[in-house]
Amino acid sequence: MNLQDDMQDIARKALAVSRQLALLKARKKNSILLAMADALEAGKARILEANAKDMTEAENAGLSNAMLDRLRLTEGRILAMAKGVRAVAALKDPIGGQISRWIRPNGLEIVKRRVPIGVIAVVYESRPNVTADAAVLCFKTSNAVILRGGKESIRSNIAIAEILNEGGRKKGLPEHAIQIVETTDREAVRLLVQMEGFVDMAIPRGGEALIRAVADMARIPVLKHYKGVCHTYVDASANQDMALQITENAKCQRPGVCNAMETLLVHEEIAPAFLPKAAALLAERGVELRGDPAARTLVPAMKEATEDDWSAEYLDLILSVKVVPSVQAAVEHINTYGSRHSDAIVAESEAAQTVFTRDVDSATVYVNASTRFTDGGEFGMGAEMGISTDKLHARGPVGLEELCTYKYVIGGNGQIRG
Amino acid sequence: MNLQDDMQDIARKALAVSRQLALLKARKKNSILLAMADALEAGKARILEANAKDMTEAENAGLSNAMLDRLRLTEGRILAMAKGVRAVAALKDPIGGQISRWIRPNGLEIVKRRVPIGVIAVVYESRPNVTADAAVLCFKTSNAVILRGGKESIRSNIAIAEILNEGGRKKGLPEHAIQIVETTDREAVRLLVQMEGFVDMAIPRGGEALIRAVADMARIPVLKHYKGVCHTYVDASANQDMALQITENAKCQRPGVCNAMETLLVHEEIAPAFLPKAAALLAERGVELRGDPAARTLVPAMKEATEDDWSAEYLDLILSVKVVPSVQAAVEHINTYGSRHSDAIVAESEAAQTVFTRDVDSATVYVNASTRFTDGGEFGMGAEMGISTDKLHARGPVGLEELCTYKYVIGGNGQIRG
Repeated sequence: MNLQDDMQDIARKALAVSRQLALLKARKKNSILLAMADALEAGKARILEANAKDMTEAENAGLSNAMLDRLRLTEGRILAMAKGVRAVAALKDPIGGQISRWIRPNGLEIVKRRVPIGVIAVVYESRPNVTADAAVLCFKTSNAVILRGGKESIRSNIAIAEILNEGGRKKGLPEHAIQIVETTDREAVRLLVQMEGFVDMAIPRGGEALIRAVADMARIPVLKHYKGVCHTYVDASANQDMALQITENAKCQRPGVCNAMETLLVHEEIAPAFLPKAAALLAERGVELRGDPAARTLVPAMKEATEDDWSAEYLDLILSVKVVPSVQAAVEHINTYGSRHSDAIVAESEAAQTVFTRDVDSATVYVNASTRFTDGGEFGMGAEMGISTDKLHARGPVGLEELCTYKYVIGGNGQIRG
Repeated sequence: MNLQDDMQDIARKALAVSRQLALLKARKKNSILLAMADALEAGKARILEANAKDMTEAENAGLSNAMLDRLRLTEGRILAMAKGVRAVAALKDPIGGQISRWIRPNGLEIVKRRVPIGVIAVVYESRPNVTADAAVLCFKTSNAVILRGGKESIRSNIAIAEILNEGGRKKGLPEHAIQIVETTDREAVRLLVQMEGFVDMAIPRGGEALIRAVADMARIPVLKHYKGVCHTYVDASANQDMALQITENAKCQRPGVCNAMETLLVHEEIAPAFLPKAAALLAERGVELRGDPAARTLVPAMKEATEDDWSAEYLDLILSVKVVPSVQAAVEHINTYGSRHSDAIVAESEAAQTVFTRDVDSATVYVNASTRFTDGGEFGMGAEMGISTDKLHARGPVGLEELCTYKYVIGGNGQIRG
């Protein structure tokens, strides 16, 4: 078979099994998930062996240390993966839930019911843990999944997918519910995301380049998780101690993630008092500051920010800093340079809070809290597939409900249209 | 300016005004809508004049009668357009509504709030009435709209858009809230649907070819309304009188629309009694029947259905007919050949109803009612932008709520992540 036939075959099998998956009861799905978690633990030697081969090849190919770290699996990481699977088993099953219900004057009863999407393709970089995460989130929501990971992690991914399937099968996991694309040919991705009528949605997980490539090629809907250029705006009315704590937390607690702050905006009235204190605190934590002229007047040690800094996702201990004349100017800056992810205001003024939360066009807007809370777990949704910066279908954390669609089930007793 | 600059300029203006639109109060928007309706009535001579020029050109170009009919405006049609605008004014404003709210153990208050999508591009064929429909639905939901209609109706579209703008401006409609692309260059559509970061969503309205072309070109999300290949399945347990009424209604009441029935499936146990009666009734109404061998044995006058008939959207007084051995076989047929739009079962058996509504993968599934009810008005949503056959974002009727997205507004008192 050629590649096109292979991919078509995978998609057909996924579509066929998706009908079966929709019928599985929550209890059955959860027992399958627990069996998968057990299998991951029992199969850790096999996963580590596959991963060792991936690592050797990746080292020989000269991958960066950051990439090698993402690729590397350890016993601890495999146990964490299994724990993650058990956590998904413990979540409430969203399928079949009634979203709303109403009766029309003609007696028709309309029930809007949550149902699986069908077939989801997950395209990701060389992070083997995504194999397990994506597989179990899709399975929990009764979606068939087609996994296509980065080529550097192919052996690890295949081992994990095989073990999930073997473990799950003991408790009745249907064949083809979790499929992995075994070829590393990039053309396979293009074919996959153009399978209208078979694949219902593509979720690219990884850097901006991957996401743009998938979005450009796709003929099916793509749920995108672009970068997080998150802001904290310190208003003139801010409680300065609170602002210092939030600033430090949003930047330093975990700088390498999408909900970490990349730009600090400070109202000009509070800047002379606040910025030197903030700069001292951040310097202690090893943060490099890059400011606009007004910020550099107050903190001369700051580097000069360039235009590129305002839209940069550093994912590192670097922070751009700007002094603004008003909350409106802060909003304008965020809507211009931000990535519609997560932005916070620190303010005691309710008027400023209202302007900010109403006018900042982002998935999540915070009042007096750190942007680091944008996360499925922190929201109380449990595990998530990522943080959507799209506006359609799902915005912000993509949890179980966001991996579902709905249908209208309408009951009548002979109604016809007049 | 070249075309790319022109389109970029339109998109920039739309993005800028979208921030303003999000702030408009419901009462203000409704007074603007009523002024638009008045302006349509007052400006009918101007619209008819523009339309007459379009019609002359279209007749000279040899357009089909069906296309000419869609293009033609009359005083009655313009008054109906104005009435439609007033009906949208009377609908509840969905913007700002709270979808859900919860408090996290750390005290963070999470409010999921309905907000406008931002900028919507509507690409449609030569039906001038879509200009008004699309403009007011987008405006009611505080979205900026960029309209791009078919070239045959360009003068009518421009006249309608100008009049809506003139009327609305008297009550404070912001400039650029409703923009129309005045060039008929097809390249403009491609540019429009690739404006990531400026245009949030494209809605193609028209035939399958238009929708596919837009979906193929787009880099932004597309809300698709493909064809309606709708089924009625008459179960062995059906009340035959009810089944006859529903069959007649679903096929004949308005055969040219997407929620009309195209295929009748009949259980083999009831077929000998039911099909001859149904065929006689449909023959009286001028319906041409195309059956499978089993159906033709029972009603020999029927033509022979070909494989293509099962996926055909006739939009006409033609019906394909098939005898099936079970509800499962009916479901299988629908999921294979249908378009995931609207499908009905007529059955007294609750078991058959359950299988059908659970397993048919369509936006709307009916028990003992006509598929013709799939419509925003009939659902109680009011006017709609169309019927989505997509599974993401919106499925089924696209009313005001489906033209919105949401954001999370999170209130804290200094929470940081540990």
